[in-house]
Amino acid sequence: MAVSAPTQPSGVYAAVLTPLNAALEPDPALFVQHCRWLLDNGCDGLAPLGTTGEANSLSVAQRIALIEAAAGSGIPMAKFIPGSGSCALADAVTVTRAAVKAGAAGALLLPPFYYKNPSEDGLFAFFSEVIERVGDARLKVYLYHFPQLSTVPITLALIARLMKAYPGSIAGLKDSSGDWSNTAKILQEFPGFGVFSGSEEFLLANLRAGGVGCISASTNVTAALARPVYLAWKDKGADELQKALTDVRLVLQSYPMQATLKQVVAVISGNKAWVNLLPPNRPLNAAQASELMVRLSAMPQMGAILGKAATKAA
Amino acid sequence: MAVSAPTQPSGVYAAVLTPLNAALEPDPALFVQHCRWLLDNGCDGLAPLGTTGEANSLSVAQRIALIEAAAGSGIPMAKFIPGSGSCALADAVTVTRAAVKAGAAGALLLPPFYYKNPSEDGLFAFFSEVIERVGDARLKVYLYHFPQLSTVPITLALIARLMKAYPGSIAGLKDSSGDWSNTAKILQEFPGFGVFSGSEEFLLANLRAGGVGCISASTNVTAALARPVYLAWKDKGADELQKALTDVRLVLQSYPMQATLKQVVAVISGNKAWVNLLPPNRPLNAAQASELMVRLSAMPQMGAILGKAATKAA
Repeated sequence: MAVSAPTQPSGVYAAVLTPLNAALEPDPALFVQHCRWLLDNGCDGLAPLGTTGEANSLSVAQRIALIEAAAGSGIPMAKFIPGSGSCALADAVTVTRAAVKAGAAGALLLPPFYYKNPSEDGLFAFFSEVIERVGDARLKVYLYHFPQLSTVPITLALIARLMKAYPGSIAGLKDSSGDWSNTAKILQEFPGFGVFSGSEEFLLANLRAGGVGCISASTNVTAALARPVYLAWKDKGADELQKALTDVRLVLQSYPMQATLKQVVAVISGNKAWVNLLPPNRPLNAAQASELMVRLSAMPQMGAILGKAATKAA
Repeated sequence: MAVSAPTQPSGVYAAVLTPLNAALEPDPALFVQHCRWLLDNGCDGLAPLGTTGEANSLSVAQRIALIEAAAGSGIPMAKFIPGSGSCALADAVTVTRAAVKAGAAGALLLPPFYYKNPSEDGLFAFFSEVIERVGDARLKVYLYHFPQLSTVPITLALIARLMKAYPGSIAGLKDSSGDWSNTAKILQEFPGFGVFSGSEEFLLANLRAGGVGCISASTNVTAALARPVYLAWKDKGADELQKALTDVRLVLQSYPMQATLKQVVAVISGNKAWVNLLPPNRPLNAAQASELMVRLSAMPQMGAILGKAATKAA
């Protein structure tokens, strides 16, 4: 099944972090500021309200407020793919509709993740209901495959069935499984499908295999290193650029992801409020935070990122 | 740590099913009717909006509407323990507050279940925030231990920590793990704690070990068989009563639980709309439904339940 979409979203996307104030409420102004900073510092696009964005820890109203804040502040919606999934059908419909209404390029949809081992029929019914209830030709669904957290995989059979039923709506997939062989199989099976790897570690491999880019937690920090890989992926030096990028990713992912990225962004922005997380996620402890920053500072490729940060914080 | 609460909820509770109309919207009138039927047919109390009640497939507004419908229709709130958990802190607070406002005897709280392997600190923080934000001495929290679905266990250490911090609020636990040794350990560690087994299969064992009863999916159907066990648990004949009950439970749990119970209630009530389920759950297929009813009809102890049903349906 081939999909032709010359204008499909592509490149380095960040799974945008959600800043929270002391009361653990999202801070829309700081969110918009961070979106702008990301677009100015290596990101081709933004995928807020996913796992990194703590979307499942937020109410529907809190999620929609962030989408509307971005849209209302001139963040380009053609580069904006918010998460809009939920275990609750009505909530998934409400947030997806808000994303479409805001003009978002797509909506990243988790499967319902409470009930375990749902049937393929049941998952097909869920996505069908969302697409049909939203009922808008502008809706471009990106399926969100993250079985380690959702516990519910998006199988190739389910993708095929959804693409056949909704060829104009099923636009792509984010593969956060960390299993490159799964991404490769999807790309082989569905040429032209908008497949993002869930980590910039696989950015080059994904582009070479026909994927469109990455949507990653850690590109909240590493976008300036990921961008050159995306721009030069056909060139001889691409592997070396990828290696510099991967080395940073591997350090970052050796700590709890959301807490780690909020810690680094707090340093980069000079705004300590960034470390706030909704439970059950917790900030890094002081020892972890200190060790992390020492390790990152020792990496030459992080110089410009942390240096710029230091300047900004000063 | 001993807990003294002579008036604590106890006995046979049903994890009340949520009736849905053709548009998959909850039907509050039918919900209230089913609540009444359960109280008239063996239930000591009601625990709606849990796993059986498809609460995680419902929006916050849909959940609150059901709580308010029950409270407004004279369903006794002293026997009413709705589920009020959510991955989203703000949602858990909103639904829990609604339960307290309605006068519910308790609120059954799942841990946040999206992020995997959360720290004990993170889970403690979540429950603390809910209790403190609701900020009402009437709140009685029942912790909901169902690791097969939530993936996040409620450990003994977490229970102890919460009971110490909120002795007036942490009232009990529903153990749906199916692991009797876990229930036994909790009862041994926390005498007087309001421990419900998550299946009527363990009702007698739980009562003998100091527990207060069961909150079960299948008591939507078996309450008339579970009640005698609860009333006679100190008597010689209790084991025989438990066996008759367990035999039915074992048949029911050999099929997908929500679909199975909705199928049987559809037959009992003569209302086919009962089979509707929110995706990803799906109704039984015709062959399963037929086999199930044949098996149940062949059990003498089901005669009165299905017979009464037949009369009602006629």
